[in-house]
Amino acid sequence: MSQVRVHNFSISLDGFGTGDGLTLDAPFGHAGRRLHEWMIATRFGRPILGQTGGSTGIDHAFAERHEIGIGAEIMGRGKFGPPQGGPWTGLGTDEEWRGWWGPNPPFRTPVFVLTHHPRPSIEMEGGTVFHFVDAGPREALDLAKQAAGDRDVRIGGGPTTVRDFLAADLIDALHVVQVPILLGRGVRLWDGLEGIEERFDVEVVSSPSGVTHLTFTRR
Amino acid sequence: MSQVRVHNFSISLDGFGTGDGLTLDAPFGHAGRRLHEWMIATRFGRPILGQTGGSTGIDHAFAERHEIGIGAEIMGRGKFGPPQGGPWTGLGTDEEWRGWWGPNPPFRTPVFVLTHHPRPSIEMEGGTVFHFVDAGPREALDLAKQAAGDRDVRIGGGPTTVRDFLAADLIDALHVVQVPILLGRGVRLWDGLEGIEERFDVEVVSSPSGVTHLTFTRR
Repeated sequence: MSQVRVHNFSISLDGFGTGDGLTLDAPFGHAGRRLHEWMIATRFGRPILGQTGGSTGIDHAFAERHEIGIGAEIMGRGKFGPPQGGPWTGLGTDEEWRGWWGPNPPFRTPVFVLTHHPRPSIEMEGGTVFHFVDAGPREALDLAKQAAGDRDVRIGGGPTTVRDFLAADLIDALHVVQVPILLGRGVRLWDGLEGIEERFDVEVVSSPSGVTHLTFTRR
Repeated sequence: MSQVRVHNFSISLDGFGTGDGLTLDAPFGHAGRRLHEWMIATRFGRPILGQTGGSTGIDHAFAERHEIGIGAEIMGRGKFGPPQGGPWTGLGTDEEWRGWWGPNPPFRTPVFVLTHHPRPSIEMEGGTVFHFVDAGPREALDLAKQAAGDRDVRIGGGPTTVRDFLAADLIDALHVVQVPILLGRGVRLWDGLEGIEERFDVEVVSSPSGVTHLTFTRR
């Protein structure tokens, strides 16, 4: 049975999944890389910076699950970018915005971008195809499940998108990584989700790296 | 050198140190006992419900530190109660409010209650003396340190009081216990404390009970 999963979703101690003041140079705003340093230090994450090596302990074991068995991703327009949102023309970039990830994005599956400004799909190198859909969580999930076949669907973020899918009770497995910093401002993951722990088995394990892995497995 | 410490300060995953809708029957509002069940299950916490036994593992080891070497406590009016706040007369109780804890409170030291409505000190059984002071964090701490002598001062809560002392950089050791529930509403601990982790060495360890212990030790 195919699942709907969230992986490596990093938040600060005060619950922010992204910082404040997002720009083209700062996709996570004032958070910088601080929410994701734990991942960049793993064997899974090192290639993101074009490096090799990296840890192979608990942080790597969790991080690597991001890819395994995934057949499609759904992401919010906030994750796809650019930071100013709105229509796709007049964005102040030289060419049409194709995401943050260059010509060969790391997804390698169909990716459904939730937006109120639909546009034609974009086929990238390496198997990633961006589709743009003006749809709610359920409708988008139907599309993604069709595309994924018997593989799983990843809800890729940002915080508002994960929260919307949690509120709609569409997530089977949620992996949140709490980083011991206080961002003070940004977009919160947990707002409006009172009591959702009752729908999940929750496991919490701290890593020697200082982060804490929380896994929510739907009952 | 005497220290200023916070212990067993429990928050939900979404950062609330107390719930919403506090009443005489529900001192933590809709949170009920959920933030403190981990502590009630320990050998330290069992006597709170008049019971014996209890676990003696990591939760107990942390919980017990609450008492050791403490010579005075500072608490907010919100912790002392009653929930409606305001002046001390006309509270709808049969007698003058003397806190939640009965004739023999568990503090057994001087306790300084921060309030804009000062009143005469109250000497309780067992060594607890409630003093009522209309003072900011620094001034209250001077009083508490004098009372504590060479012992430490505990900042007892609630969330607003702990936050005020953190913001004023007056805390040497902070122990926060994160409980894997989402309260959704109440009073948050971390608001307005961006970047305070830079002033502390932070350690995080998860307990088999499901809670996570975070310790902040001032650099």
